[in-house]
Amino acid sequence: MPRFLIDRRATLGALLASAAAAAPFSMPAIAQDDPLPSWNDGRSKQSILSFVAAVTREGSPDFVPAPQRIATFDNDGTLWCEQPMYVQLAFALDRVKALSNAHPEWKTQQPFKAVLDGDLETLAKSGTKGLVELVMATHAGMSTAYFEEIASDWLKTARHPKFKRPYTDLVYQPMLELLAYLRANGFKTFIVSGGGIEFMRPWTEEVYGVPPEQVVGSSIKTEFKIVDGSPALFRLPQVDFIDDGPGKPVGINSHIGRRPIAAFGNSDGDLQMLQWTTLAGSRRLGLIVHHTDAEREYAYDRTSHFGRLDKALDAAKANSWTVADMKRDWKRVFSFE
Amino acid sequence: MPRFLIDRRATLGALLASAAAAAPFSMPAIAQDDPLPSWNDGRSKQSILSFVAAVTREGSPDFVPAPQRIATFDNDGTLWCEQPMYVQLAFALDRVKALSNAHPEWKTQQPFKAVLDGDLETLAKSGTKGLVELVMATHAGMSTAYFEEIASDWLKTARHPKFKRPYTDLVYQPMLELLAYLRANGFKTFIVSGGGIEFMRPWTEEVYGVPPEQVVGSSIKTEFKIVDGSPALFRLPQVDFIDDGPGKPVGINSHIGRRPIAAFGNSDGDLQMLQWTTLAGSRRLGLIVHHTDAEREYAYDRTSHFGRLDKALDAAKANSWTVADMKRDWKRVFSFE
Repeated sequence: MPRFLIDRRATLGALLASAAAAAPFSMPAIAQDDPLPSWNDGRSKQSILSFVAAVTREGSPDFVPAPQRIATFDNDGTLWCEQPMYVQLAFALDRVKALSNAHPEWKTQQPFKAVLDGDLETLAKSGTKGLVELVMATHAGMSTAYFEEIASDWLKTARHPKFKRPYTDLVYQPMLELLAYLRANGFKTFIVSGGGIEFMRPWTEEVYGVPPEQVVGSSIKTEFKIVDGSPALFRLPQVDFIDDGPGKPVGINSHIGRRPIAAFGNSDGDLQMLQWTTLAGSRRLGLIVHHTDAEREYAYDRTSHFGRLDKALDAAKANSWTVADMKRDWKRVFSFE
Repeated sequence: MPRFLIDRRATLGALLASAAAAAPFSMPAIAQDDPLPSWNDGRSKQSILSFVAAVTREGSPDFVPAPQRIATFDNDGTLWCEQPMYVQLAFALDRVKALSNAHPEWKTQQPFKAVLDGDLETLAKSGTKGLVELVMATHAGMSTAYFEEIASDWLKTARHPKFKRPYTDLVYQPMLELLAYLRANGFKTFIVSGGGIEFMRPWTEEVYGVPPEQVVGSSIKTEFKIVDGSPALFRLPQVDFIDDGPGKPVGINSHIGRRPIAAFGNSDGDLQMLQWTTLAGSRRLGLIVHHTDAEREYAYDRTSHFGRLDKALDAAKANSWTVADMKRDWKRVFSFE
């Protein structure tokens, strides 16, 4: 189940507001031998480099053996773009349209009618109840294998409204470098996202180098059945687990069974993951991606409907977490720039 | 939560019956260059070797790329001894004794009184309800970190009633070789057990070479809290997930997100995992450990109260799964022989 379902701040009218206009990009020079070439020199980059040096240098008081080098990354807004709406919400809306021929009743039944009419104001009024109905109608009632196919096919053809590119192009180049840099230093990298676990797994290995077994996310229940001799898992219209906010440490414990030593997020939904990771009495890294770049991407924080960053921004100061300022710290945002 | 909670066949009287007497062991010669030296030559060993050769040889019609070489192993009765009772049940009973001073009410309150009196017949009569009470009283109400400490400490001192050794000595040497052999061939090995996930994780890496993030098991719910500035996960007295029978494919999907190509079990609780793994239309390996050796270990199958092997034994024949006959196929059972 996607994170937006439990975003208490999300009113759909705001959620579906259109994005800011696109801006021109420039391609910066990339230094040789720099593991993080898309990061400008500065405090953020330095805090990453010095943390990795400290925990990987044998004999260092901060040394951590490789098997315990667990790093967890939020997805929406931390690894890829979450504006003007969560990618998974765009998927759900497109699925309603794609399925509408088989559901003539949706022409008169809310919240489906609103989606089909493009009437986002009415959709917003359906609230969380409406959103749950949308998700269950589009994410449940099929096998896991078939859902994987649907999600993969959609990602191949869907385009971001501002950048006019596949959503999987809208991953942050500095974060890809960070994932690779950590892995090169013996870290095991995990995604811990409020987004649907089965919405992410089909593409995380190719795009992020993170295999399905290292993806943690929200889920609906599944049931094992053998139909005509073929076993399958069927997706049921019931929430199983919400991997957001205080759910993130729970999901980390359930799936990983170790406490991370580094965590990366961008919103209040990552607050507890950052606390769980860093308030441990030894050297840890907590980093928040702060969206400050309306030209190259988007600028939002304390009042945003998606990826609100308010409490976690205050906590960053109190806990000495690194705040990566997108505009200041990132030489480039996307690989296609 | 341990698997015995949902073993519908388990009546505690039988569960707690004492084990068969210990038997003498002999140390066999180990062949050089043989990846499975504790396996006798024969059909079982051959089926493992030929499967691994087929899926790892590039150009073979059965070739499987390394990232997809997922192998799942049941724990109780497949990797270590599950008689005369599940190790986790022995732990729960010992915990009741250890906690009894802090719970004077247990002297008169069932099922605790029965445990303290060693009255296994009365304990048996308390049924599943009693077992749940035992588990919740011994496995919940503390932080995950403290539970890990308790479980680890217990395993250091507890001794198996027949073998008079730590339970972690009672892992099957042929299966340790099989785990290592698969990993040497690019497989990722997972444990998928009905036992409690947090009861296994503290020791699976050292004993099996399987890290915590590759352990799937039954669980109780946890809750994230910050107490005096320190974050912790608290174990709640509520069932979260039962990783047994039809739950195993669900747990595999949730934790691994890929369908295994090889699965290893020993009881009806592994039936659906074996079906999910092997009924896929391409080359797969399903293997069942059949406990046929009352002298070196135990002999049990269709009528056993722990690890009943009945439907899965019939299914093995119908589906051409390999049945490893402990007496015939294993040169030695334990490393200490």
